[in-house]
Amino acid sequence: MRLATVRTATGTRAAVQSGETWVLLECADLSELLREPDWRSQVQQALEHPQSARSPRDETTLHTPLPQASKIICCGLNYRDHITETGRDVPEYPTLFAKYADTQLGPTDPIEVGGDSTQVDWEAELAVVIGAPLRRASRSEASAAILGYTIANDISYRDWQARTLQWFQGKAWAATTPVGPVVVTADEIDPRAGLEISTDIDGEVMQHSNTRELVFDAADLVSYVSQFTPLSPGDIVLTGTPGGVGLGRQPKRWLRHGELVRTTIEGIGELRNRIHMTGDHESEPPHE
Amino acid sequence: MRLATVRTATGTRAAVQSGETWVLLECADLSELLREPDWRSQVQQALEHPQSARSPRDETTLHTPLPQASKIICCGLNYRDHITETGRDVPEYPTLFAKYADTQLGPTDPIEVGGDSTQVDWEAELAVVIGAPLRRASRSEASAAILGYTIANDISYRDWQARTLQWFQGKAWAATTPVGPVVVTADEIDPRAGLEISTDIDGEVMQHSNTRELVFDAADLVSYVSQFTPLSPGDIVLTGTPGGVGLGRQPKRWLRHGELVRTTIEGIGELRNRIHMTGDHESEPPHE
Repeated sequence: MRLATVRTATGTRAAVQSGETWVLLECADLSELLREPDWRSQVQQALEHPQSARSPRDETTLHTPLPQASKIICCGLNYRDHITETGRDVPEYPTLFAKYADTQLGPTDPIEVGGDSTQVDWEAELAVVIGAPLRRASRSEASAAILGYTIANDISYRDWQARTLQWFQGKAWAATTPVGPVVVTADEIDPRAGLEISTDIDGEVMQHSNTRELVFDAADLVSYVSQFTPLSPGDIVLTGTPGGVGLGRQPKRWLRHGELVRTTIEGIGELRNRIHMTGDHESEPPHE
Repeated sequence: MRLATVRTATGTRAAVQSGETWVLLECADLSELLREPDWRSQVQQALEHPQSARSPRDETTLHTPLPQASKIICCGLNYRDHITETGRDVPEYPTLFAKYADTQLGPTDPIEVGGDSTQVDWEAELAVVIGAPLRRASRSEASAAILGYTIANDISYRDWQARTLQWFQGKAWAATTPVGPVVVTADEIDPRAGLEISTDIDGEVMQHSNTRELVFDAADLVSYVSQFTPLSPGDIVLTGTPGGVGLGRQPKRWLRHGELVRTTIEGIGELRNRIHMTGDHESEPPHE
């Protein structure tokens, strides 16, 4: 099942894919839908009802799927290939930080880079969507509570991120994290078996790896996080990014006005977001 | 004006202090009240109306004032006296991290320490409460948008905090951050002029400083944070803790089952929270 939040002339609507159309549901978005205990039967009824409202499948009408996520928790360094290439040891614990829901934007929205950052970087990530309330869950309980997966690009302002020891201020800029295009339920794809993940900029491949390289997989992370903070339906856990970010390149490489960032995960789809520098960036960010 | 969220037999209610009583308002808590644009006139009407519901001033009936805060943003190392004593330079930028609203608990609630931590520490902090929507605010705009101040103790699990570079997982445990007892409006107290701040454990003073020692004051922090994330009425900015935490002592000193943590700020009041070890802590945490 492929779920989305669709923009319509009268506001956003939760939706489920049926062939070449979106079948629209009553709720304004997937965050609202997933809070309703009977959401699966609502989806089933809408799919079976011939008079359900529909809209054509057009990715440019997609909103970020979970605009009201109560928690978005992100994992740092988590791809084995990337860790190996940087010469570090495989970590014993996941490195975690938080984002707020308003950091998200839609799968084809422009990324408006405000502020004064000249080191705007990309981070393709598999995003895990929680489907059931969860507290101090075992790995198998966590696995059972995973609704599905979507894509995120954890766009990071490296200059702000490096100002202090804590990454938050480089990661929490409003409306800079594209998420989507759809949530694919866990019965349809298996990140442990391996899904290709990549970022390209104007067609040049920058990151390319596979989710089987994750040190802490989706169930590991969800279980670990649930030890200290309760998770709710529609919450999101970002699983970290593979090698190939701008910060790790020689020379370093930052995003520039007008560039198109494409973030792809096999079996889910892609994000396509153009960079729009709106702030007070002193000249074009250089290649260092 | 002193605002609070009071527990009553029929649920929580926002309230305003009037002499020796709480005058109860319609909203369930201060988070809800502050979202209403006319909240000041609601408060005024309740104070003036002789038939307003009242309850006696009893601190044990107080709930955490802002249970639905959409953002709680915390500043790290920020007290000049503490920085000097550790031999560090005064920082150029505030070190920031995030908490979720469900980390909060009431001003006299027990702190239930779940999980396996044996290094539970205290951090007395002045908490700034936002009163108006704010985005990319100047220092003076930020200052004008500060509704008032309350007290927090950013209880930290140092073992979890030290597992990785990011502090979040040692700071985000559900229901471990007492906040309250009341929100005192900014016309009544001035942290820049100086408010005594302290923590004692079973009467032994552990932290004692003054808010005039803050490197980044309330308006600085609110302005800085608003550059990257919008703030809303009822959001909270924690301003960091002075010297004297358990981690910084020789020998290190952790909280133990049954100890009473008292956190005080002059002109606001105090938090009194007893430690209740409920998790799988291998024996009593030792003095190291």
